[in-house]
Amino acid sequence: MNAHNIYNSKKVLITGGLGFIGSNLAKKLASLGAEITLLDSLIPEYGGNLFNIKGIEDSVNVNISDIRDSFGMRHLVKHKDYIFNLAGQTSHIDSMADPVSDLEINAKAQITLLEACRKAGNHPKIIFASTRQLYGKPVYLPVDEAHQIRPVDINGINKLAGEWYHALYHSVYGIPTCSLRLTNTYGPGMRIRDARQTFLGIWIRQLLEGTPISIYGDGEQLRDFNHVDDAVEALLLAGEKDEAVGNLYNLGGSEVISLNKLAELMLAIGMKSGIAGSIRHQPFPEGRKNIDIGDYYGSYKKIETELGWSPKVSMLEGLGNTIEFYSNHLQNYIDP
Amino acid sequence: MNAHNIYNSKKVLITGGLGFIGSNLAKKLASLGAEITLLDSLIPEYGGNLFNIKGIEDSVNVNISDIRDSFGMRHLVKHKDYIFNLAGQTSHIDSMADPVSDLEINAKAQITLLEACRKAGNHPKIIFASTRQLYGKPVYLPVDEAHQIRPVDINGINKLAGEWYHALYHSVYGIPTCSLRLTNTYGPGMRIRDARQTFLGIWIRQLLEGTPISIYGDGEQLRDFNHVDDAVEALLLAGEKDEAVGNLYNLGGSEVISLNKLAELMLAIGMKSGIAGSIRHQPFPEGRKNIDIGDYYGSYKKIETELGWSPKVSMLEGLGNTIEFYSNHLQNYIDP
Repeated sequence: MNAHNIYNSKKVLITGGLGFIGSNLAKKLASLGAEITLLDSLIPEYGGNLFNIKGIEDSVNVNISDIRDSFGMRHLVKHKDYIFNLAGQTSHIDSMADPVSDLEINAKAQITLLEACRKAGNHPKIIFASTRQLYGKPVYLPVDEAHQIRPVDINGINKLAGEWYHALYHSVYGIPTCSLRLTNTYGPGMRIRDARQTFLGIWIRQLLEGTPISIYGDGEQLRDFNHVDDAVEALLLAGEKDEAVGNLYNLGGSEVISLNKLAELMLAIGMKSGIAGSIRHQPFPEGRKNIDIGDYYGSYKKIETELGWSPKVSMLEGLGNTIEFYSNHLQNYIDP
Repeated sequence: MNAHNIYNSKKVLITGGLGFIGSNLAKKLASLGAEITLLDSLIPEYGGNLFNIKGIEDSVNVNISDIRDSFGMRHLVKHKDYIFNLAGQTSHIDSMADPVSDLEINAKAQITLLEACRKAGNHPKIIFASTRQLYGKPVYLPVDEAHQIRPVDINGINKLAGEWYHALYHSVYGIPTCSLRLTNTYGPGMRIRDARQTFLGIWIRQLLEGTPISIYGDGEQLRDFNHVDDAVEALLLAGEKDEAVGNLYNLGGSEVISLNKLAELMLAIGMKSGIAGSIRHQPFPEGRKNIDIGDYYGSYKKIETELGWSPKVSMLEGLGNTIEFYSNHLQNYIDP
């Protein structure tokens, strides 16, 4: 018996469904027998990539549209049992260059989705992918959910508004919502063309293309990571557990690692497959330093206690399967 | 020598300039010799009222436009020394009924204004009128700036985003900004047609029209208030003091009063002018109870210590001059 068999035959909408996490979630849900609709705008700067659903094309309904399209949203949320709301603009740098687009996607469109659910009458359970970014520079480590909130970029401010709308539509209208504050997530399907999802994406590209892995600053900044399989598991648990309703949880990694150590780990993994790599330290580019948050790693004690989630995939294993995936499919992600 | 003579001959833009606080600020700045532009959309549900600038029409430049108009904003911020950024949608109830408009005015338009300043090259000092609403239900009293932030309505979420954009444009781009988190403000020029600015507005109307003052719930909720003269003084201090740059401050009242006591005070003041009044308790209307914050009063210790501000106008005196003002000008505010 499958641990997540509650999803069998359930109607599920995944916004950002062709993206990195959305497509991995879709694969899992397809194996569970869910009726899946994937909504994605395929905006080139974002994470959507049709290659991500290779193999499950016949098990999902793909709807190419933008979550800013309020009329479309009204139709798409109808009769759904679950909405995994993963669509978002994730680049911190892009949010500073074009703050209005970031606001429209990460805040305004979230209101549109929630209003559509409120007006539709049926109240699907909504799991929102929030971000550790809203904590800003940590005051203490690991960062738990009680940590002060102080976003240091436009993206953090707008994602926070998006998260709070979800909490509000639960407390005021009774729509069952839950938010997960994701940390750096990595794995097969992530954007590696550039650093728009996480710097780890571009590092994988650099390793596989034989150019040096670029580390900004001294590389001693600490971070935590989740393999996408662990993130998907958290999303599924948040959707099925009653305790999650009206709640929010940090995700977090069980290993804390400096950027230098991470790059070295990648080189070591590459070496085993005969890939020679190198590392280059360089100063923070203009515009990146003043929104950098220094060391960050999160506490996942709350979700562990309440929902029974903890990360299972080690960095060694997870980075290994990720690098292997991209060594086989590099072109599909560089020039999709 | 005038305490605020720094404003003499300075170019000042006031967004929401025909509104309650904006117009009172304009009168003070006109007396100080500032060159004043008032921007206001005159949206009927908001606070703008041309009667508010009666007497200073020739001392100000009135520009009727909407802060959502990004091209207009680019022109209007140019060459300004100070921007008092008071335009906003203030109704909690309206923000729930039309969350997208609230977001456009309280969040998106704030980005537009800040981007216009960034691109204009000159960096006017910007004082943003934020709100106590972003604290949500108080965890302790009085609420100081370290209190947790947990808005309970759309308006609080969007105003918070607006405030944080201001802090961000200071930390990242060096634009000198300061935010004041206002509490209930009252005085001549406030909206009294309905409860869109504060419930105290509609109470004044009820008293003067001889209908009972409506109190929702048991009336024991505590609140604090600032007379508009005190709020204007805080805005001027925040604009002229270097310590204010990159900072935020609560305003707050020196008297904490229950709604019942406040209504009784209003009846007593009315009686002295021969106005007979009454009070009616009634249950919270649908939609209001679940966004009510219970008791609230703020600590203004930080602004008192750093900028030397404290409220000077007592409730007795302030309510007295306010009720007197509206007994002379009721029609101009009910049917403007």
